[in-house]
Amino acid sequence: MRTLAIAALQTAPVPYDLEATWQRYADQVRATRSLFPHVQLVVVPELLLAAEGPLLGSAPEGWMERIAEPIPGPTTERVSALARETGLWLIPGSLFERGEDGRVYNTAVAVSPEGEVAARYRKVFPWQPYEKTAPGGEFTVFDVPGVGRIGLAICYDGSFPETVRQLAWLGAEIIVQPTLTTTRDREMELVCARANAWTNQVYVVNVNASDPAGVGASAIVDPEGIVRQQAGTGEEILVDVLDLDTVTRVREQGSAGLNRPWAQLARYGEEIHLPMYGGTFRTPEWAHKQNSGQ
Amino acid sequence: MRTLAIAALQTAPVPYDLEATWQRYADQVRATRSLFPHVQLVVVPELLLAAEGPLLGSAPEGWMERIAEPIPGPTTERVSALARETGLWLIPGSLFERGEDGRVYNTAVAVSPEGEVAARYRKVFPWQPYEKTAPGGEFTVFDVPGVGRIGLAICYDGSFPETVRQLAWLGAEIIVQPTLTTTRDREMELVCARANAWTNQVYVVNVNASDPAGVGASAIVDPEGIVRQQAGTGEEILVDVLDLDTVTRVREQGSAGLNRPWAQLARYGEEIHLPMYGGTFRTPEWAHKQNSGQ
Repeated sequence: MRTLAIAALQTAPVPYDLEATWQRYADQVRATRSLFPHVQLVVVPELLLAAEGPLLGSAPEGWMERIAEPIPGPTTERVSALARETGLWLIPGSLFERGEDGRVYNTAVAVSPEGEVAARYRKVFPWQPYEKTAPGGEFTVFDVPGVGRIGLAICYDGSFPETVRQLAWLGAEIIVQPTLTTTRDREMELVCARANAWTNQVYVVNVNASDPAGVGASAIVDPEGIVRQQAGTGEEILVDVLDLDTVTRVREQGSAGLNRPWAQLARYGEEIHLPMYGGTFRTPEWAHKQNSGQ
Repeated sequence: MRTLAIAALQTAPVPYDLEATWQRYADQVRATRSLFPHVQLVVVPELLLAAEGPLLGSAPEGWMERIAEPIPGPTTERVSALARETGLWLIPGSLFERGEDGRVYNTAVAVSPEGEVAARYRKVFPWQPYEKTAPGGEFTVFDVPGVGRIGLAICYDGSFPETVRQLAWLGAEIIVQPTLTTTRDREMELVCARANAWTNQVYVVNVNASDPAGVGASAIVDPEGIVRQQAGTGEEILVDVLDLDTVTRVREQGSAGLNRPWAQLARYGEEIHLPMYGGTFRTPEWAHKQNSGQ
């Protein structure tokens, strides 16, 4: 049995106070560790540690540029120390990363219990034109040894179906998607979370900021597109144990006991013309293996 | 103002009686014409004219192979005559098409009021392993002069996000999706219909068969992912006027007044690596035009 016990913290920063926000975050991680000692991974909303205030407030001049830092850098070092201290996998939402090219990216990181930065993902689809970060160009997965593979996505990425498609193709069985949504399109993000889970047969853990930083409604969706948990608008913790054998089961025996889309793509995807990508469907490595075992 | 008045008939065939099913269909089209003279296009469920019976009944031996016919062929000639008689655009669901290669395809056709076959689309994603038709390899759109462009999809196609993505990329503003769903994954098809509409900013008209041929729940979704109409399980007609200027509006001013995903893809999509397709995002012709006008 492969399982991953997670806690998704729907929470909010202390606006424009990096240190107070960090202390709040670290306290919440420690409290989670203490209350739910079986939890293995803690995830929080997008840009939580950037401590931005509510959408309709005014921001300090040049906030993003001022606080952006490299990865690894001071904040990821703190996260690494906290991961080692608590023995947890930590996905501290995303950070304003100062890239080696001088540009600022909205970057999610995953830190192992040993304090290693196991993955760094630059948001491919910043919420333009509102968000001023530069877009990344690649999708990112990482392995939790003995458990499975996780793909990272950030907020608006979920409204582009290619995101989760690529992550699943790269072998992800769980999509962890820190989010900071402040507007009423949140409803459609939840529709997309379900569609992304269903069409790719993956878990989707979409954790949004709580009021007043975001509109909440964090959700955990299973690989058949069924909503396991959905939060309200306030501060909440979503604790869950994700059964990765469920991913294997639905891929082998079908979602709703019926549908095996990946097997279908592997069978004849290369004959389907996809002019908008200039290509066709390529069979993922893991499906090659799965099919050869049938 | 560009509008298209449609009627989606959630109905059922007379099981395994092609002639009775045809007469029933023709009567329903004439009744629609008479009751709702402003309607321009009538669409019915997938494979309606193939007159298959309910899922759990037994079918005559070799039914699909026996009734498959070329396109154009006897059935499309009848559809063309009916289109001329009524002055309607007709999408008579889909047919079992006998291809020039001898294989049988599940093929949707669109016939103009002049009786011309304006489009023929072979279902790219047959519901495998249950459905025995050969898969098509290309996506298909057609124009309703003075109104706009329609893309064809069939049932399970909607669970593969590439389908509507491609159709929208080809310029479709409305997706007409005849469906024959007999199982409880219908709920996820509706989730996908909303996600497909939202992520691509297109109308989705998904017409399923009624009880006992299918589980109904036909839906019309607008280009912001909002469900305009959704049927129950029985025989129903969904009449609606689709405003194609709405597609233009949401693409220019954003879905929910916020999101312009196509502009974002046009801006830097070619820098995003999509290994599963062996390509990147290509900017659609229509977006080139739209952007040059800004």
